[in-house]
Parts: sequence; structure tokens; C-alpha cells
Amino acid sequence: MIQLSGIAASNGIAIAKAYRLEEPDLTVSKKEIQNIRAEIERFEQSVESAKAELEVIKNSTEERLGADKAAIFEAHLLVLNDPELLNPVKEKIENEAVNAEFAMRETADQFIAMFEAMENEYMRERAADIRDVTKRVIAHLLGVQIPNPSLINEEVIIVAEDLTPSDTAQLNKNFVKAFTTDIGGRTSHSAIMARSMEIPAVVGTKEATAKIESGALVIVDGIEGQVIINPSEDCIAEYEKKREKYEEQKAEWAKLKDEPTLSKDGHRVELAANIGTPNDIQGVLDNGGEGIGLYRTEFLYMGRDQMPTEEEQFEAYKTVLERMEGKPVVVRTLDIGGDKELPYLNLPKELNPFLGFRAIRLCLEKQDIFRTQLKALLRASKYGNLKIMFPMIATIDEFHQAKAILLEEKEKLVQAGIEVADDIEVGIMVEIPSTAVMADQFAKVVDFFSIGTNDLIQYTMAADRMNERVSYLYQPYNPAILRLISIVIDAAHKEGKWVGMCGEMAGDPIAIPLLLGLGLDEFSMSATSILPARSQIKKLSKQEAESFKEKVLSMQTTEEVVSFVKKTFQI
Amino acid sequence: MIQLSGIAASNGIAIAKAYRLEEPDLTVSKKEIQNIRAEIERFEQSVESAKAELEVIKNSTEERLGADKAAIFEAHLLVLNDPELLNPVKEKIENEAVNAEFAMRETADQFIAMFEAMENEYMRERAADIRDVTKRVIAHLLGVQIPNPSLINEEVIIVAEDLTPSDTAQLNKNFVKAFTTDIGGRTSHSAIMARSMEIPAVVGTKEATAKIESGALVIVDGIEGQVIINPSEDCIAEYEKKREKYEEQKAEWAKLKDEPTLSKDGHRVELAANIGTPNDIQGVLDNGGEGIGLYRTEFLYMGRDQMPTEEEQFEAYKTVLERMEGKPVVVRTLDIGGDKELPYLNLPKELNPFLGFRAIRLCLEKQDIFRTQLKALLRASKYGNLKIMFPMIATIDEFHQAKAILLEEKEKLVQAGIEVADDIEVGIMVEIPSTAVMADQFAKVVDFFSIGTNDLIQYTMAADRMNERVSYLYQPYNPAILRLISIVIDAAHKEGKWVGMCGEMAGDPIAIPLLLGLGLDEFSMSATSILPARSQIKKLSKQEAESFKEKVLSMQTTEEVVSFVKKTFQI
Repeated sequence: MIQLSGIAASNGIAIAKAYRLEEPDLTVSKKEIQNIRAEIERFEQSVESAKAELEVIKNSTEERLGADKAAIFEAHLLVLNDPELLNPVKEKIENEAVNAEFAMRETADQFIAMFEAMENEYMRERAADIRDVTKRVIAHLLGVQIPNPSLINEEVIIVAEDLTPSDTAQLNKNFVKAFTTDIGGRTSHSAIMARSMEIPAVVGTKEATAKIESGALVIVDGIEGQVIINPSEDCIAEYEKKREKYEEQKAEWAKLKDEPTLSKDGHRVELAANIGTPNDIQGVLDNGGEGIGLYRTEFLYMGRDQMPTEEEQFEAYKTVLERMEGKPVVVRTLDIGGDKELPYLNLPKELNPFLGFRAIRLCLEKQDIFRTQLKALLRASKYGNLKIMFPMIATIDEFHQAKAILLEEKEKLVQAGIEVADDIEVGIMVEIPSTAVMADQFAKVVDFFSIGTNDLIQYTMAADRMNERVSYLYQPYNPAILRLISIVIDAAHKEGKWVGMCGEMAGDPIAIPLLLGLGLDEFSMSATSILPARSQIKKLSKQEAESFKEKVLSMQTTEEVVSFVKKTFQI
Repeated sequence: MIQLSGIAASNGIAIAKAYRLEEPDLTVSKKEIQNIRAEIERFEQSVESAKAELEVIKNSTEERLGADKAAIFEAHLLVLNDPELLNPVKEKIENEAVNAEFAMRETADQFIAMFEAMENEYMRERAADIRDVTKRVIAHLLGVQIPNPSLINEEVIIVAEDLTPSDTAQLNKNFVKAFTTDIGGRTSHSAIMARSMEIPAVVGTKEATAKIESGALVIVDGIEGQVIINPSEDCIAEYEKKREKYEEQKAEWAKLKDEPTLSKDGHRVELAANIGTPNDIQGVLDNGGEGIGLYRTEFLYMGRDQMPTEEEQFEAYKTVLERMEGKPVVVRTLDIGGDKELPYLNLPKELNPFLGFRAIRLCLEKQDIFRTQLKALLRASKYGNLKIMFPMIATIDEFHQAKAILLEEKEKLVQAGIEVADDIEVGIMVEIPSTAVMADQFAKVVDFFSIGTNDLIQYTMAADRMNERVSYLYQPYNPAILRLISIVIDAAHKEGKWVGMCGEMAGDPIAIPLLLGLGLDEFSMSATSILPARSQIKKLSKQEAESFKEKVLSMQTTEEVVSFVKKTFQI
């Protein structure tokens, strides 16, 4: 029995067999072949096996995730039916009397190099297809297994160094009970994905892949951030009990779905959700979300080779607004750049992309993109309760510029006789230190603030939140961060404006009592955090939380704050 | 007559002929040769010419900048005397009947590839030597001129896209009257170098190299940031007058050299200098510096292939302390990482180096490096008035850790009977927003603050100061920055501690009245800015400057602040 500690990335407990998601060793060596006919036959059989496997993967992906997600496997099948790739392999086996693996590798490499050298984006993508397909055929030739997460058909816990978006897209929630990774933190892709899939996850264990063999029994405790390998009978029993208790708690939480969010002493706050696409709305409604606190519109722009049209955007915004039935929907305008690239924008590489040309900075320069989005938003505004939010605002000038463009577009639509809601609130993300420091001045001109703690923390501490070497400085509870949050809330309230928070911090049980005490009005989080947060807030007294404000803000370190909160609020 | 606008990077006015510092086209094509003997002779002559040229450069560099700076040219001469490089070129000419340029290029490329593939750092550097020498020989063969800034022997204005440290090392101050570049800002290397050489400079003109031909008459106005190409007679006369006026002003300033820095109403502040090496001390003394506000020790570690020894460091620190004769010397411990790399540390590449593993973060992990430096500092402490400053402190924990290590090393030295000053003040750079926000808590534990505005501005505005696309956000006078500075100063004074500033802002005429009003105690700047600053402060009333504090801190934009200061203080 071995126990690993990691970062509790998604709540819940799972007990199941490990499934390692990893690339097998596909190294190929050159061998001389005696029986050429047999070798060609072996090659043909491997191609057929690969094709059969791809058919199954394609069908299961199509069924579960839709035809668009399955299209990639269709493309792979086309490659495996292409004599222009297969014949040269057979000829090579025959002419050079070499083994099929080697002939496939060499032939494929030539095609890959040729396609990669092409100017045309479409042709360059063909290189990626050939690379994938070649792996699959060589795996069959070598008799090793390529992991096919979409083919998993028994209950497993995924063990991986890290999970890519395409890995997670293939996971079947019915069988994948949890996952654990070597790297990543609470805000990494795999962590966010786990919370959205509502499965337990422990990330950043450093050695999950080193310690866990495929098929080993594993417990993932996403509440405490623990992973237990080959647990004893007693241990299993203990965790079964813990899991039951957690399931009971979840059932309790579920009862709160349609209740308002009131503290013990009757103070009301709003619990909203962060979403990326209209598909996320169902989860928000199922989890009793009172609004959308952050609609990240950049997903509309990503994973494609050109801008979304105004019409595509309009449809997405309209869907979200309609499905939320008059509940507030805060839409953040395009936040691209930084770690989120759009290949079709051809932006130059930057030395420090997090301190670079992104979000509103880019939108104010590339106004055609910005105006198209604003038009789509304005047109959709009559279908619900729309609020528009600008990201990465650092100066009051930038806000004035962005708002002026919005008003221009609105005026144009009104002139053209198109109906636009008249009461759209216009606010900003507070995620740059200068903006927090100047909150009293901003509060005079904006309708609301939403504090983006993920970025605010990294800039305030000057520590890249994706960089493991400085991750110890990513400190949400550092008194410096709490002070900035407090400054922002007080400044807004003085001008009668409301303040939300849409960083990971808003759903964090340790942060919640602090934020309630500081006066936060809206907490926006992963949908699955809403019910636990509501349950927690119902047990808290706003007045009591507020009474600790001065004490906490004059603490010196994160450790002091955390131990005080844990002790005072029994977390 | 064409006029270009750029960034005024170093004060003063110069009128001289343009000298373009640029790589000539050294493209080589393959030609068949009839007279092989003549071609080999042509090659040998070019090698001899290159050698003669290198001798001159070497001697002039040695004379002006010392043997260490000339060593690189000695290495180049060795390469040009090496038959292992030269014989294969001649053989190639002979065997293949090709032209000398082509034979040299091909042969050199083989050697370069071979050396670059080697593990050994020393051998890899040989590749760079061969590359430089090859350029020089090919230039002679092609009959084109490689710019040799060290050979300039008439008054010129250097025109370049940008200047590298090695370019500037070769410049002869007697002949180089100014420079102007296409890129760069006030804090770029070339700008800092210009101020340290006390020659006018206008950087970031975008099109200096596109518009200025070699030999054209050029005026560089480093006061207003203007470059005039082929000026009219009237224009020349006007600028001659302006230059005289500036020279008169400089003579006035010189009289202030030994005066204390007192405001009109008798408030005293300290004007100190930022230095990189002991060689900079003379300039500090010549310019009436009252201390060293920032000794950037990283230059001791750069441009070499291993750590400096404790002894080397001790000698440097001792020299600086002794030459400053009891005046305060604030030494910043190693600030490496970010944009300053040390190849021999083998640090992994980071996605956002400015938000990465650098300065104190690195020193707390690589304690051997840190302890060696601290030991050298402690040993040198008895030779003057040493203050030790830690860079990039983001949390109080980091300060406690760094100070504990310092005290341990001090205790060890004392135990070993080595004399150490007893009154060494220990402070921190305030360059991370969290530290400014927490200044009241830091003020209880540190002896002093020095505000590093270059970094503080870039983190507070979340804008990489080296990135031209977001340079409009690098706003020293943004009220957010002024508020943070004010918070830091007030917090320090409340605990009876002093506050300095060692960013570029401290020497800026627009910032000086603001900083005086906010209560800054020590202004540390390029040595050449000290006398103008003293002259300015003598004309300012501290009380008046202070009376504008609340007004300025409640402004909304940089533009408001700048226009208020310009109007109020007639700048």
C-alpha cells in the first residue's frame, strides 16, 4: 500500500483499477527479412487491424460526442485506405528486404516531411494524420497496445503524466471513475475538466505514473488530494464509508438546488457559474446556478481556422441567454493571446505572453473582431439578462475606449431598426493590480466588477501560475490578495455597484468565509461547486465573517490566514 | 531635411556625420576558377588583411577598455593563424577549382557545425570565433567593409537598428558623439549605455536605419527625442545654439557637485547612483553622487563560463566600498533569471521568464550561490558603509528566509574570527505589487525599502516593458503606480524606516516633484542624471510638492498627472 499526496482538483472518492494513458515504446529497428511475401502479409494484416480499431473508436466517439468529434478518425481511416501511402511501404519491403515496421516508418517519415514543408495549412494537417495512423499500424506490427481511452469499457481510474484536451474529449464518463496525474494544479486543464465531468481527481502527484501499474487497484480521494495504491482491505472499507458519506452529502446538497443562497443571518449572495459553451448550461441548471458569472467566449474562436461569423456568435449568445431565462449572464468579450493562441490571427511570438498583447489590448487594436462580437452580443441582448464585461482592463482610458465602441455599435443597430436591450450593464474584469488599486475611480464609470483571481494573483505576486518552479507563490490567501479584493469591494459598494468573482477562488471552501466577510456579492465558479458552496454559506454568519475582516487583513502570511480560517470556521 | 521622432534616451545634442553600424551582405556564390594559384594568393592576402585589422582593433580595445575586453580579438587572431582551418580552404580551392569565398564559407561551416555539436562549452565558443573570423575574411575577399566601431577615428553619430553590449563596448567616446536606433526604449540596454557614456541618444525612432545614409549629416537631440537628417543651415545654427545652452547648463550643474541636495525650503534628500561594476564609481564621484543606491551585482556573474569565486566578489565589493569612502552603498544580491540568463546555470526555458524563477527565488533554492555572495559581502562590510538588499521579494516569508541565511553566514564568519561590520542594514526591493500592498507589514521587519519602478510598473500594469505592442501601458505616472509608491513611503516612515527608489523613474524630471511630494528619501539614478536632479530639487519646495499629493493621487489617468506636473512645475 503506497500513498501519494497531490492537489485535490475535483471532489469525490473513487476506487477502481488503474488505466495508464501513455504512449508505448514504438521504436523501430531495421531487420533483414527472408520471407518477403509473409512480411507483406503481416503488414496488410496490421493495416486491417488498425482500420477495424479505428472504426470502433469512430463509432463510439460519434455516438457519445457527436459527428464533429469523430471526424478526425474518419480522416485517419481515409489515410489507411490510400494506396499512395501503402504501396510504397510494400515496395520497400520487397525491394530492400526489410521488415514492415521499418518500411512503414521510413515511408511515413518521407510523406510527413513532404506535407509539413507545404505552405497550405490543410496539407500540413495531413502530416499529423499520417503520424497518428503510422503509430497505430506500427503498434500492431510490434504487438503493443496504443491506449484508446474511448474504448474503455470497464470502470477505471485514468493515470497519466497529464491529460490533453483531446484525451479528455475521448473519456467515457460511465467508465472513467476518476483520474490522477503527475503534473498540473487546481487551474490546469485536467483539473477544470474533472470538475466539469464531476469526477474526482488528484493532480500534481509528481509520481503517479512512476508508482502505479496498469490494473493496480487505486483509491483517488479528490477531497483530501490523496491517492492510495494497492490499498489494504481495511483501507478500502474506510474509503467505501467515506465515499458513502460523500454521496449522502451530495444528496443533501441536491436539495438546495432551488433554494436562494442565504447566510445563517439572512444575507443574500448570488452563486453563479463559469461556462465556456452553451453546452455547459445544462450543468449550471442541474446544479442550481443563479446566473452565469463568466461566459468565456474565446471557445467560439478556438479550434477552427477562421473567425466565427457574427451569426454564429449571435446564435451561441442567444442560446445561453434564452436557456438562463432572465437570470443574469455576464459575457466576457474575447480574451485571446497569452496562453490562448488563435493560429489564424498570426500574432507574433512574445517573450512574456502573460504580460503581452492579449484580451482588450488586442480587441482595441483589431477592432473588426471586437465590433463583430459586440454586434452579436447587442443583437442577442433582447433574449435575456445580458451583462457585458471587458477583460484585462489596466487603465480607465481602455475602459472608455471599449465602452465608446460598444455604444457606437449599439447606435448603429438602433439606427438600423434592430431591437437592443436598453439596460445592459457594462463592467470589467479586475485582474490587473493597477485596476484593483484604482478601483475607487473605476467604480465611478463601470456598472460592476468581476474579480479574476487567477490572473490577479499571478500579476500581484509576479509568478506565472503555470510555472511549477514558482507555484509556491501562487497564494490566493496571501493578505496582499485579500487586501486588493477588499479595496475593490469597498470601492464598488461606495458607488452602489456590485462585485463578483470569477476566478477559481470563488468556489474554494477556505476562501468563501473570507469573501463573505469582505462583502462579495456574486460568487462565480464551476457549476459543480455551487451546491457545496450554498450549503457552506447557509451555515455561515455574514456578520461574524465580517467581524474578522480587519484581523485577517493585518496578517502577514498565507499560512496565518489559512490556519485562522480553518480553526475559526472548522473547515 | 527629414525629422524623426523617437524616445529621448540620453540628454544632450550632437551634430555629426552618420556612421551606420550594420552587417554588410556577405552572401557567397560558387564560381569556377581558372587560375588556382592566383586564387590561393588572393585568399592568403585576405587572411593577412583580416589579421592586420584585428591587431589594430585588439590594440585599441586593450588601450581603451583593458586587456579583458580585448581578449576576444586575441582569440580571433589565433584562429586566423591556425593551419587546421586555413589549409583545408586552400586544398578546396585547388581540388575543386572554386573561388576562395566559397571555399572559406564551406570549410568554415563544417568546422562550425562540428564545434557546435560538442558538449563542451569551451569548444562551442570556438564555433562563434570561427564564425566571426570567417565573416571578416569573406568581407575582405568580397571587398566590402565590416563595421569596426573601435576603429572609428572621426566624429560620428552611430546609426543602428539596435546596439548590442559588444557593439557598445567597442565605441570610442572621443569620436562617437551620439547614437540613434530603430528600436528600444528608455530602459533598453542602448539607452542605459548612452547615459553611462554621457552621450546623447534617441532610441526607438523606428526608421533611423531606413532614412539615414552613411555620411549624411545628422542632428541628435537627446533632450527632445528628435533626429534631423540633412539639416538646413538655419536648423544647424539653431541646434548649435541649443547645444551651447545645454553645455552652459551642464557647467552650471557641475558647480553643484559637492553641494548637499536640499529643496528650496531646506528638506534634504539623498541623490545616489545605480552602478553595475566598480568601473562605474569614477562617474558617480565625478557627478556628485552621495551614495550608491543600487549596485547590480549580476554583472559579476555574466559574460563568463562559471560562477565568480568568493574572492573575486570580495575584491569587487571591497573596491566599491572603499572608493565610496563611507558613503552608503546598497548592494543588491544576485538578480538573475528573467531576461538575464547565466548559461552555466542551465536553467530551463520558461514561458514567461519575467514571472518566473529569478532573483531571490533562485537564490533561496540554489543556496550555495547565495551564501558565497553573502560571505563575500559580509567580509567586505568593514571597508565602508554596506547595506544589503534582496531583489524580487514577494512575501514576508521570503525575506525571513533570506535574512536567516545572511545571519547564519555572519555567525560563521564571526566564529571564524573574521571581522564583519555590525551595523549592516538589510532591506528589500519593492518591485512586486504584493510587497507594495503589504508594505506596512514589511516595514516592521526590514531596515529600508528601495522601490524598483522598472519591474513594479510592468507587474502592476501587467505589461512586459520590453514588448513594443504593450509599451503604451508602461506608465510610470499612472496614478496606480503613484498610489503604490505613496503607500510604501508612508508605511516605511510610520516605522521610522527610509525609502529609496532605484528604477529609471527616480531620475526623471517629471517624476522628481511627485516623488519629493510623496516623501521619497533617496533617489538613485544613472550617475549623469544626478546633477540635473540636484539642480531641479534646489528649485522645488518640498512643502508645495507635498500639498499636491492628495490631488494627484485621486487623478484618473497618466495624461492628467503629466499635464498637471508640467503646468505646475513648469517642466
